Amino acid sequence: MHSTFRLVLDCPDQIGLVAAVSQFLSSIQASILEASHHTDIHLQRFFMRHEIAADSITLSDEELRIGIQDLAQKYDMKWSLSRSTEKRKVALLASKESHCLNDVLHRWHTGELQCDIPCIIANHSSMQKFADWHQVPFHLIDFTNKTKAFEEIEHLLEHYKIDLTVLARFMQIVPNELCEKLAGKIINIHHSFLPSFAGAKPYQQAYDRGVKLIGATCHYVTSTLDEGPIIEQEVMRISHSDSSVDMVRKGKRCEINALANGMRYHLEDRVIICQNKTIVFN
Amino acid sequence: MHSTFRLVLDCPDQIGLVAAVSQFLSSIQASILEASHHTDIHLQRFFMRHEIAADSITLSDEELRIGIQDLAQKYDMKWSLSRSTEKRKVALLASKESHCLNDVLHRWHTGELQCDIPCIIANHSSMQKFADWHQVPFHLIDFTNKTKAFEEIEHLLEHYKIDLTVLARFMQIVPNELCEKLAGKIINIHHSFLPSFAGAKPYQQAYDRGVKLIGATCHYVTSTLDEGPIIEQEVMRISHSDSSVDMVRKGKRCEINALANGMRYHLEDRVIICQNKTIVFN
Amino acid sequence: MHSTFRLVLDCPDQIGLVAAVSQFLSSIQASILEASHHTDIHLQRFFMRHEIAADSITLSDEELRIGIQDLAQKYDMKWSLSRSTEKRKVALLASKESHCLNDVLHRWHTGELQCDIPCIIANHSSMQKFADWHQVPFHLIDFTNKTKAFEEIEHLLEHYKIDLTVLARFMQIVPNELCEKLAGKIINIHHSFLPSFAGAKPYQQAYDRGVKLIGATCHYVTSTLDEGPIIEQEVMRISHSDSSVDMVRKGKRCEINALANGMRYHLEDRVIICQNKTIVFN
Amino acid sequence: MHSTFRLVLDCPDQIGLVAAVSQFLSSIQASILEASHHTDIHLQRFFMRHEIAADSITLSDEELRIGIQDLAQKYDMKWSLSRSTEKRKVALLASKESHCLNDVLHRWHTGELQCDIPCIIANHSSMQKFADWHQVPFHLIDFTNKTKAFEEIEHLLEHYKIDLTVLARFMQIVPNELCEKLAGKIINIHHSFLPSFAGAKPYQQAYDRGVKLIGATCHYVTSTLDEGPIIEQEVMRISHSDSSVDMVRKGKRCEINALANGMRYHLEDRVIICQNKTIVFN
Repeated sequence: MHSTFRLVLDCPDQIGLVAAVSQFLSSIQASILEASHHTDIHLQRFFMRHEIAADSITLSDEELRIGIQDLAQKYDMKWSLSRSTEKRKVALLASKESHCLNDVLHRWHTGELQCDIPCIIANHSSMQKFADWHQVPFHLIDFTNKTKAFEEIEHLLEHYKIDLTVLARFMQIVPNELCEKLAGKIINIHHSFLPSFAGAKPYQQAYDRGVKLIGATCHYVTSTLDEGPIIEQEVMRISHSDSSVDMVRKGKRCEINALANGMRYHLEDRVIICQNKTIVFN
Repeated sequence: MHSTFRLVLDCPDQIGLVAAVSQFLSSIQASILEASHHTDIHLQRFFMRHEIAADSITLSDEELRIGIQDLAQKYDMKWSLSRSTEKRKVALLASKESHCLNDVLHRWHTGELQCDIPCIIANHSSMQKFADWHQVPFHLIDFTNKTKAFEEIEHLLEHYKIDLTVLARFMQIVPNELCEKLAGKIINIHHSFLPSFAGAKPYQQAYDRGVKLIGATCHYVTSTLDEGPIIEQEVMRISHSDSSVDMVRKGKRCEINALANGMRYHLEDRVIICQNKTIVFN
Repeated sequence: MHSTFRLVLDCPDQIGLVAAVSQFLSSIQASILEASHHTDIHLQRFFMRHEIAADSITLSDEELRIGIQDLAQKYDMKWSLSRSTEKRKVALLASKESHCLNDVLHRWHTGELQCDIPCIIANHSSMQKFADWHQVPFHLIDFTNKTKAFEEIEHLLEHYKIDLTVLARFMQIVPNELCEKLAGKIINIHHSFLPSFAGAKPYQQAYDRGVKLIGATCHYVTSTLDEGPIIEQEVMRISHSDSSVDMVRKGKRCEINALANGMRYHLEDRVIICQNKTIVFN
Repeated sequence: MHSTFRLVLDCPDQIGLVAAVSQFLSSIQASILEASHHTDIHLQRFFMRHEIAADSITLSDEELRIGIQDLAQKYDMKWSLSRSTEKRKVALLASKESHCLNDVLHRWHTGELQCDIPCIIANHSSMQKFADWHQVPFHLIDFTNKTKAFEEIEHLLEHYKIDLTVLARFMQIVPNELCEKLAGKIINIHHSFLPSFAGAKPYQQAYDRGVKLIGATCHYVTSTLDEGPIIEQEVMRISHSDSSVDMVRKGKRCEINALANGMRYHLEDRVIICQNKTIVFN
C-alpha cells in the first residue's frame, strides 16, 4: 500500500470552497486518490476529505502544513493532516468476551486495520493467553476500587501514548472526566441497535420486547452512556425460534462487523464528528 | 391455489403433543402441506400450526371441529380453524400518504394478499380517487370531533363485518376502548424501527440521533402507543448524505415491505400473539 | 423541489481536473448541491457529476454551455448538461405482469420518479385497464409478426419522442438494430442475479441449482442478451421451504426495487456507462 | 449445553409419517427440543430432523437404534442418529489466506462450532505459526507432485479418522476419486456467489462484469468443480468506488460468514443432501 496524506477539514459553507481546496492541491501537483465532501444544509457547514498520493507532493511536510494553514485561515477551516504510514496507537479494553478482540487482532495482523496495538487492558485474566499469542502486552486491572482502576488505565493510555481507545466489550462505565479527556478518541461497541436497548443486557431487553432484528452499534463514547455519536450499525434478522444462544451468536457477528468498520473509518480519518452525529466518508 | 385448512393451537407444554395432534390428523387422512411448532421454554407453552389440503379430509366441517375439540379438551388447548377460501374482510384506514395503500391494493388485486377489502376509511379526501380506481367504497371521516369520528369508524367496521383493521399510515391515535375491542385484529405500520423513535415524526428523530439504518415496524395495536406485539420489521442503510427526501423514500420501502409481510402472516394465520410478543410461523 | 442543473463529464485522467471544473463553477457563482467523482485507475479515466442549484447561475443556458464547451475542449471531455425540470419521456414496455408497472407508475404519480410517461406499449391486453386508470395511452402490439411488431414499437418511440425505454417485464427479445439505436437509453429488469441464470425462466434455473438467495438485475440492454452494463441488483434469502409461489413473490420485490433504483439513477443522470460497466453516483 | 440426539431421516412421502415418528418418540418419552420437516412435492419425498434431550430417553443407544430401525423398515426410511456430545473430527485444508482459518478456530475455541480439529493441512508454511498458537498439528504438503500430495492428504484424513474435510480457501482442485470417496463429507468455501464466477479469480471476474453485489458460497465438493450442493451463501453490496482491496475485504467477510454457517449446519446435522441441492433445517 502506498503512503498517502489524508486532509480533512470543515468550515462554514460558501461558494468556491471546493475550487479553493482543489486549486491549492492542483498547484502543488497533488495526485488525489479519493475526495469526498458534504454540506450540512441545516448547519450551513461544509465538510471535506482528500486522500492524496504522498509521493506526488514535492513540498516538505512543513511547507505543506503552511500552505494548508493559509487556506484554512482564509475560510475559517478546522483541519487535520495525517500520513497513512504514521500508524495510530490503539489500546484495546476488554473483559471476558473474546470475539471482538480476536477479530480486531486478526485484521490488524493481516494489515486490514492500519494501526499499532501496543497494549490490551482488561478487568479479567481470561484474555491473557490470547494477548500472549499475539505478543501484545496485557494489563490486568483490579476493579475492586473503580476510581483507582481507571486512574491506572489513564496512566497506561498515557504511558503507551495511545491515540485511540477501543472498548471491545469492556463491561465497565468510563468516568465522565476520562470520557471528556478522550473525546473523539474513544470508541465503544454496544450490543444493540441504539437508541434501542441502551444500558445493561441489551439482548435480554431485545428478547423481552420481541423485536425481529437485533443489532450492534459502534459509537464514540461521551459522558452520557450509550448516547455518543454513532459511527456504524449492523443488524441481523431473528425469530421466535432463536434461543438466547442463537441471539448471542448472531449479535456477536453484528458487533464484530460494526466494530471493524467503525475502527477502520476512524483510523483512515473518514469520520468527522459534528455535534452528536458523524459524517462518515466511506 | 387449492383450498386449505389452517389449524392453529397452543397449550401447556408436555411430551407427546406433536404425536397426539399428528396422529389425529393422520387418523382422518389429512394431507399436511405445512407444519410448524415452537415451545417457549420460559413459559412452558407449546404452539403449533398446520396447513392441510382441504380435499384430503372427508369429514364435514362440523365433524372436524368436534374432533379437534375433543383433542383440545384433553390437552387444555386454545385453537382456531380457518379455511383459506373464506377470505377475511380487511378495512384500510388511511390519511394522505398513498404508498402503503397502493402496495396493499396491488397485492390484493394480484391475489398475493388473500382477503376482501370492502372499504377504505380516511381523514383526508386525497385517497378518494385512488379508492375509486380500485372500486373500493371510500369513507371520509370528519375529525373535528375525534370521539364522534371514532364512533363513526367503529360503526363502519361493524357494518362491513371487518375481520382485520389496518392502519396504513393513518395518523390518528385509536382510543383505548377501540384498541381493546379490536385486540389482535388491528395492525399498524409505524415508520421507525421500534422501540426506537416511537410517537410522532420518527424520521426526524432518527435524523437527529444520527442512526445509520432506518426502519419500519408492523405491529398489533394496543392501548399503549407503539408498544403492541411486533409482527415484522424492515431496515435500510442510510448515511449523512441522505436528505430528508431520501430518508422518506427509503423509509417508505421499509413500510411497504413490513406491512405486506405483516398482513400476509396475519391473514394466513401464521401469527400467534403470546403476551406482548408474536410467534410467526413463516 | 428546486430546479437544478446536472453536469456529467468524463475525460482522460490528469492532475488538476477537479480544480479546473470547480474553479469554473465557482467563477460563475454556481452553488453546488452534490458533487461526485471517480477515477478508473486501470483506464486512467476520470468521471464527474455535479448537481447545481439552477437559480444560483446568472448565465443563460447558451452561455453556460459555451463555458463548459471551452473547458471540455481543453481536457478532451465528453459531457452532458440537463435540467431537473426538463423531464425525460419514458415508455414502459410490458407484457402480462403488473408489479413493475404498478410500482413505477405509483412512484411517478407521487413525484419520486421525475419523468413523463407518455405511453405504455404491451403485447397483451391485460394491462389496458391499468393504463386507463393512470390515464396513460396504451398501445397493444400484435406479435404474430415480430419484425413488424418492433417496427411499430420503434415508430411509437419516435412518435412520442421517447428518451428512455423501459422493459418492465416485457418478455420479448429486442432486435439487435433497435438495441444499438437505443444504446444507453433502454433499460431492462431481469428476474435473476446476473450473470447467473441469464435467458428464460430464471426462477426455475435458480430452483434447480438450489441457490440460497435469489435476485433481480436492472441493466442497459445491448445486443448480447442479458449482458449489458448492470445498474442495480437486489437479492433476497430463500430456503428449501420456499415454494415457487414464494420465490416469485420474493423475486418480484427484488425486481421492483432494482428497477425503481435503476430508473431513478438514470433519470437523475447518476449513471455513466464505461465499456460494459457503470459508474453510479448514488 | 445439554446432550442431545439428532435423528435425521428421509423417505417416500405418504400420509401419517409425522404421526408415526412422533408417536414413536412419544412412546419412549423423548423430549423434543426442535423438530423440522419438509416435503419435496416434485420428488414426493419427505425429510425430517428431530433434536431430542438425551436424558429424556431411558432406552440404551442400542435399543433406541433398534426402535428407529423398525420404524425405518416400515416406511423405507434412510436415517442417521448422532449425539451432540460425540464431536466430529474436522480437518482444515488451507493455503496462504488466514481469515477463514482464524474465524473457524476462534468459533471452535469458544464452543460455537461443536467439533474437534485434530489437524490443519496446508500447501504453504505461512499458517504454521498460526496452527501452533492454537496447538493444532500442522502438516505441510509438498505439491510439486499433485498425485502424491493428495495421497498424503488422503492418508492423513484416514490417520486422524476425519469426519469432515473443510477446504478453507485451499487453492487446489481435489481429484475426482477423493471427491467421490468423501462425498457429503467435504465442504468448500468459494469466493463468489455461485453459479456466477465459478473457477479461478472470482473477484476479478466480478470486477470485470461490473456486478453490484459480491458473495461467497459454502457447498459440498463434488467431482464437478464448484457445482456441488450449496449449503449457504452470503452477499455484500459493492460499487464502482470499491478498489480490489475493498472487494477482497468485503468478500472475506462473506466467506467467513458463509463458511461458519455452512460448517455449523453440517456439524449439527441440519443439512440433508437431495440430488444436487440441500435441505437446511436452520
